[in-house]
Amino acid sequence: MSARALRVLCISGPNLQLLGTREPEIYGTETLREIHARLRARGKELGVSVDARQTNHEGEILDWIAAARAKYQGLLLNAGALTHTSLALYDALRATALPCVEVHLSNPEAREAYRARSRVAAACVGKVSGFGGDSYVLGLEGLVKHLSARSREA
Amino acid sequence: MSARALRVLCISGPNLQLLGTREPEIYGTETLREIHARLRARGKELGVSVDARQTNHEGEILDWIAAARAKYQGLLLNAGALTHTSLALYDALRATALPCVEVHLSNPEAREAYRARSRVAAACVGKVSGFGGDSYVLGLEGLVKHLSARSREA
Amino acid sequence: MSARALRVLCISGPNLQLLGTREPEIYGTETLREIHARLRARGKELGVSVDARQTNHEGEILDWIAAARAKYQGLLLNAGALTHTSLALYDALRATALPCVEVHLSNPEAREAYRARSRVAAACVGKVSGFGGDSYVLGLEGLVKHLSARSREA
Amino acid sequence: MSARALRVLCISGPNLQLLGTREPEIYGTETLREIHARLRARGKELGVSVDARQTNHEGEILDWIAAARAKYQGLLLNAGALTHTSLALYDALRATALPCVEVHLSNPEAREAYRARSRVAAACVGKVSGFGGDSYVLGLEGLVKHLSARSREA
Amino acid sequence: MSARALRVLCISGPNLQLLGTREPEIYGTETLREIHARLRARGKELGVSVDARQTNHEGEILDWIAAARAKYQGLLLNAGALTHTSLALYDALRATALPCVEVHLSNPEAREAYRARSRVAAACVGKVSGFGGDSYVLGLEGLVKHLSARSREA
Amino acid sequence: MSARALRVLCISGPNLQLLGTREPEIYGTETLREIHARLRARGKELGVSVDARQTNHEGEILDWIAAARAKYQGLLLNAGALTHTSLALYDALRATALPCVEVHLSNPEAREAYRARSRVAAACVGKVSGFGGDSYVLGLEGLVKHLSARSREA
Amino acid sequence: MSARALRVLCISGPNLQLLGTREPEIYGTETLREIHARLRARGKELGVSVDARQTNHEGEILDWIAAARAKYQGLLLNAGALTHTSLALYDALRATALPCVEVHLSNPEAREAYRARSRVAAACVGKVSGFGGDSYVLGLEGLVKHLSARSREA
Amino acid sequence: MSARALRVLCISGPNLQLLGTREPEIYGTETLREIHARLRARGKELGVSVDARQTNHEGEILDWIAAARAKYQGLLLNAGALTHTSLALYDALRATALPCVEVHLSNPEAREAYRARSRVAAACVGKVSGFGGDSYVLGLEGLVKHLSARSREA
Amino acid sequence: MSARALRVLCISGPNLQLLGTREPEIYGTETLREIHARLRARGKELGVSVDARQTNHEGEILDWIAAARAKYQGLLLNAGALTHTSLALYDALRATALPCVEVHLSNPEAREAYRARSRVAAACVGKVSGFGGDSYVLGLEGLVKHLSARSREA
Amino acid sequence: MSARALRVLCISGPNLQLLGTREPEIYGTETLREIHARLRARGKELGVSVDARQTNHEGEILDWIAAARAKYQGLLLNAGALTHTSLALYDALRATALPCVEVHLSNPEAREAYRARSRVAAACVGKVSGFGGDSYVLGLEGLVKHLSARSREA
Amino acid sequence: MSARALRVLCISGPNLQLLGTREPEIYGTETLREIHARLRARGKELGVSVDARQTNHEGEILDWIAAARAKYQGLLLNAGALTHTSLALYDALRATALPCVEVHLSNPEAREAYRARSRVAAACVGKVSGFGGDSYVLGLEGLVKHLSARSREA
Amino acid sequence: MSARALRVLCISGPNLQLLGTREPEIYGTETLREIHARLRARGKELGVSVDARQTNHEGEILDWIAAARAKYQGLLLNAGALTHTSLALYDALRATALPCVEVHLSNPEAREAYRARSRVAAACVGKVSGFGGDSYVLGLEGLVKHLSARSREA
Repeated sequence: MSARALRVLCISGPNLQLLGTREPEIYGTETLREIHARLRARGKELGVSVDARQTNHEGEILDWIAAARAKYQGLLLNAGALTHTSLALYDALRATALPCVEVHLSNPEAREAYRARSRVAAACVGKVSGFGGDSYVLGLEGLVKHLSARSREA
Repeated sequence: MSARALRVLCISGPNLQLLGTREPEIYGTETLREIHARLRARGKELGVSVDARQTNHEGEILDWIAAARAKYQGLLLNAGALTHTSLALYDALRATALPCVEVHLSNPEAREAYRARSRVAAACVGKVSGFGGDSYVLGLEGLVKHLSARSREA
Repeated sequence: MSARALRVLCISGPNLQLLGTREPEIYGTETLREIHARLRARGKELGVSVDARQTNHEGEILDWIAAARAKYQGLLLNAGALTHTSLALYDALRATALPCVEVHLSNPEAREAYRARSRVAAACVGKVSGFGGDSYVLGLEGLVKHLSARSREA
Repeated sequence: MSARALRVLCISGPNLQLLGTREPEIYGTETLREIHARLRARGKELGVSVDARQTNHEGEILDWIAAARAKYQGLLLNAGALTHTSLALYDALRATALPCVEVHLSNPEAREAYRARSRVAAACVGKVSGFGGDSYVLGLEGLVKHLSARSREA
Repeated sequence: MSARALRVLCISGPNLQLLGTREPEIYGTETLREIHARLRARGKELGVSVDARQTNHEGEILDWIAAARAKYQGLLLNAGALTHTSLALYDALRATALPCVEVHLSNPEAREAYRARSRVAAACVGKVSGFGGDSYVLGLEGLVKHLSARSREA
Repeated sequence: MSARALRVLCISGPNLQLLGTREPEIYGTETLREIHARLRARGKELGVSVDARQTNHEGEILDWIAAARAKYQGLLLNAGALTHTSLALYDALRATALPCVEVHLSNPEAREAYRARSRVAAACVGKVSGFGGDSYVLGLEGLVKHLSARSREA
Repeated sequence: MSARALRVLCISGPNLQLLGTREPEIYGTETLREIHARLRARGKELGVSVDARQTNHEGEILDWIAAARAKYQGLLLNAGALTHTSLALYDALRATALPCVEVHLSNPEAREAYRARSRVAAACVGKVSGFGGDSYVLGLEGLVKHLSARSREA
Repeated sequence: MSARALRVLCISGPNLQLLGTREPEIYGTETLREIHARLRARGKELGVSVDARQTNHEGEILDWIAAARAKYQGLLLNAGALTHTSLALYDALRATALPCVEVHLSNPEAREAYRARSRVAAACVGKVSGFGGDSYVLGLEGLVKHLSARSREA
Repeated sequence: MSARALRVLCISGPNLQLLGTREPEIYGTETLREIHARLRARGKELGVSVDARQTNHEGEILDWIAAARAKYQGLLLNAGALTHTSLALYDALRATALPCVEVHLSNPEAREAYRARSRVAAACVGKVSGFGGDSYVLGLEGLVKHLSARSREA
Repeated sequence: MSARALRVLCISGPNLQLLGTREPEIYGTETLREIHARLRARGKELGVSVDARQTNHEGEILDWIAAARAKYQGLLLNAGALTHTSLALYDALRATALPCVEVHLSNPEAREAYRARSRVAAACVGKVSGFGGDSYVLGLEGLVKHLSARSREA
Repeated sequence: MSARALRVLCISGPNLQLLGTREPEIYGTETLREIHARLRARGKELGVSVDARQTNHEGEILDWIAAARAKYQGLLLNAGALTHTSLALYDALRATALPCVEVHLSNPEAREAYRARSRVAAACVGKVSGFGGDSYVLGLEGLVKHLSARSREA
Repeated sequence: MSARALRVLCISGPNLQLLGTREPEIYGTETLREIHARLRARGKELGVSVDARQTNHEGEILDWIAAARAKYQGLLLNAGALTHTSLALYDALRATALPCVEVHLSNPEAREAYRARSRVAAACVGKVSGFGGDSYVLGLEGLVKHLSARSREA
């Protein structure tokens, strides 16, 4: 598999459509649209095609993950508050064979106690948190390195 | 801002469409439709326009809260069982700048232990519970008083 | 029973005599005396006679609740910090046949974790919190509606 | 009521559409479509009409349960990961008057600790787990026996 | 010391003045006054003088226990709801050298979970619960046997 | 039913055959045989026939409790360490219709933390603890009073 | 292996000999003897020989399980209250190579919290609960299907 | 403000009137009266006037703290067992603007586990424990240093 | 006392009769009979007579421990799964004056979390675990050294 | 401040000197020396000078962090197992004014439960985990972006 | 022993070398060097020689405590963050016969929850916290009083 | 590999250098030097060369374990209080391929609750505790048997 052929799906969950317009002291001023643009641009440099979507519906994220295997080689997931409560997301990630990188704009462990536990982490290959929109970009780089290493091994 | 101009969105969550038809010993015999009518009537007396909706979908509540800021000055929220589990609702309320009043028909703290903890309370200005449909009406009055006080301060 | 005949006892517990003079960022600037005056005024409009008292002594609250049945038809209770620790208050409310509404000036669930649990809630018909002195007034309205509904049923 | 007239709704929740294609060492190789077919066939033998659906959306399951009373006499529910987190499902089952049997393909208690607790169990008449697709069939048989016993008593 | 000379103080705490008038399904129909009379009568038979008091004030119980050593040889204590919360009662019992028997009308361990833990038990020589007013009488008999055994050893 | 006709079964569980010979600082010097003799003697005074047995086998206690209803009107139970661990004892007591009084020689709540919780208490009418062998005798008196009260009511 | 040759041992634990005679609102009116008869009859239809026994002694259940491998191909186990406390049963099931189905007459998860945890579940292939005596019959059917599937694979 | 003008209120809570007469192995042989005398003497050396009181009534301590601001510049508080249970004391200290030093005769953290948590500590500027009556004296010195530093800053 | 005169009782609990025949990856291939033979042989070298028994009945272990003092000077105990649940075993060991060494074939702390807590450890002089059958032999050596040291001191 | 002038200290804690030689299935085959080389190379591309060290001594890490402010603008920290236990590391990071990025080779949250909590996370700006040696490189990139953003704001 | 002859060792642990230079809002502006100077000066007034040291290494503190008995009569210990985690410090203090006073600059109980528990407190004679550098000086005074009282008793 | 060629490293952690001089009622009167001598002597009999060291520094133990594989075939570890807190020790033992036996002089499970959990046990082949210095000797014998068994298998 050539790295050029890689397709990655980036999923953002509840409330992330509000990025850049509210609570900038926690989440920064960059909008999700701008982050998606940066992500696609960085993907282009890495020879990776990136699709990026947001939804407030857990069920829709589950639909997307289940359908992803037919079209993508990897996932970026910022599940928002579902990170801390959704066992269904964990099961969906386990069920799909795609490597997933968990990303967060802020550093959840420096906030409320209940944000310290990620339900999805155990089904992900890695995590990047705390760098604002750069968490997405670094997460993409990590995912691509992971996929390249795996394809070298194969 | 004149109080006459106020618009309030009232959101009811999972299973509340069943009000008045099932388990009346817990929730009373008034239907949600009747409560909504009373709420609008009381709003008219207070010079407040009230929109009231129900959904079983958490994602839809999140969509409504995110969109509310463009059109409403305050929220009434009866999140049903999501009250006790949804961090995403808490995040949505924090992200919007609108004051929200939490309402419950019954008194959740007099029921099962896991109903004693409200995940959304910390993002609300106040709570009214235990008065059946009157909880909505009293919650509206509290919200209007809160908004008036705030506008006097501004 | 005519609503005109109703008598309500309003009890405020530890430290509430300090209202309006200390920590106004949490509790507001209105004094307990002023809240009591507003409560009596609103009671008069509703045809309800309201007696309002404060004490720092848990034992005295217990004495008052036990004696209330002879003279009152309902209770408003802001137990202050005893809300979270006193099983004796819960027992007293259970022992008396009077409906009680729990009120709080602030929203305890938005503060320290140990304020999220109310020991008295399970012995109350409802709760109003977060509206400053208006919590008392709204609580009185809820109580009166509750008593009216009950007398209609009887 | 004759047993012939019975209608049962079978609901499968998040990620169960993936059955038979992924993680067969846990969930087996039978697809949900095949299980549904077997279920209808066994229903026909028992004189029961079975409708079977799957969704990844919790809200949709709630809609289905609320609407079921008009058309069905009983429910089969495999709520997937929502089994362990959804209080709203529990409330919906309580609100409907239909007997429900909880089914699981695997044995959740032999897996991660957080799968040992079922939020919906307390609103169900019984449970069958661990027999793959046969859990659905045995659950249907148990439900039919339960309904027959009840109609005999009535 | 002759058993004839024994003096025992019986203390009842919060809400126990209401005995016999409220919640008879839990606490029975006998009043505290009647129990006190029976207790004094049984004491007379045993050659023991019994003083019996009730208060809703924890501080007053502490005062009584501290003063008891000058005049009494043993204590009967029904601390009501303070049983489960008051470390100060435990300390007071430890500080006094008088043997104390814990009594309860009902069986607290068959009620709410938080009534299963007694804070004062570890500072008492024994406990009698569940026999209504007879718990006091049996507790007195146990206390007298305990004191007699001790004086025989001395 | 005449009180004369009463038959009571007294069951002592694991390690209680050792009473009087070991750890007298905790359990006293009286042997179980001596306690049984005292119990029968006191029973005779009260017009009650008392059978008393001991076993180290939980299964045998369960057999005895199940068989007791045919021959006895009440139970005295000192389950020893099984008090704190055996749900089967609780179930057996619930299944039998006989009133049971829980007795302990020492005061378990003044010892290790895990002895503070009694698994059988919630299935007993009352408890006597801390008076050595007298706990059995007082327990018998309480049981007889309980049975008399009940027969008066019937 | 022909299905005709199958032998199954059904073990019922503490207090289950009382079935049908006590607490029928929880456990129903069918006796264990009747359930055993039904089980043998259903076994005959399935070509399976069923031996069924009951004991109140945990040690005897352990003896039976250990000896079962020489004579049986599968186990049905209703361990009663030992379900929630006995690690030894779990170890015994693990040590034997026989597939076991856990059965319960009632739905333990709809009862006390401590009945929600099954110690033996993790050593069983599946579970059927909540259908009264039918739980045994459905459990037998599930066990036979499981054994057939396994023998087909072999 | 000159240090000479300082007035300090020293409050001792439940059971501390017993000091020097009971449990000297824990609390020493000095009486509270003697400690108060030493405290006043040391105050005189430091140019501070010290008032010292004791009560067994939590409500009275609350009254004293609320009234203190009119007359004192600082507090010494040994709340005894209330240290570990009273949220109302914490609230009272927070409500008053006076700096408070928590003192204990013994070292509570070297005793029972439940004495390791102080409810009032978070509302105090500092703590001195373990030095018997000297804890009061050292606490006064610390309080005076604290007040002096603060007045230098002002 | 001469070391030659020592008699030791070795007790093995639930499921240990299965040793060497099942789950050899955890417990090894040596049978309990072989371990007993090795133990007696090693005992002979040390001048110690060893009796070794196994039972699946907790009650029988309690009987054996209670009877042991008349005939033995020390105990070796492998309580199997009862190690983690039986308070009665702890009490029996405390009641007997014999030193006991706890032995385990595997290392329970490297297995499930609930195997990390030993209920009997606090009543034993020492523990040897993880060396298969050698745990018994090393435990015997430790016990003999312990007994010799004690007799030297006496 | 020009980005060229940046100096970064990379600290690896206990057991990380063993990387590449042991447990490669968890930590990969790359040695720490090789990771350090890659890190310096990537730093050179970014115009950042990277110093990288390892120690098994918590005290030495504390010394390094305290001294870092004089010479570095940022920190990379892989604290190994100290991540989960060391409050002193958290304090040291808080005390220094340098931004720190937490890195891990593996994904600790997919391993034992006690590795899910990071004690240092709350004092870090972000985290990168799960990418083997690439976690260090991506962490460096994130740190440099963070420092650049901050200097732009200044 | 004359008080003049006393020698005291003062040990400060992790990060305390940073005092006065960082986070002055929590720890004040005085440096550790300045506190040490004040401590020695106050020691001189009291006729006590004070040695004061700091280290970030737990092992070094253990070495110092173990060696202290040969040269010192008492210890002052500010263990910093090790206060809350180090069982080894507790053991070292228990092993040495020297009285130790625990000191803290800030009031740990008014900070994060995990700072409320001191692992070393139970091995100390007393504690002084919350007075900045004065905590050390007051701790020294308390220690000297403690040593004087003890020598008077001897 | 001949057993003669075996080399074993024995590591003792914090405070164990104090053995024999302090708290003999817990740890005995034998010094660590004497235990080391006995260990070497017993090793000589078994044809094993034993090196024995002690340190108070966790980091140094980690250094020793990491370096041990080049020179030793097995480890004896008494980690002292670090046993209960150090995840780094666990990781170091896992990382090295050497079998380790955990030894303790006393029986930690008969002491404070927090000593019941060993962090290192899960990385050790076995444990010997409670026999004073003999724990080391028996641990060595167990280790040698383990190594012999393993070399026979190889």
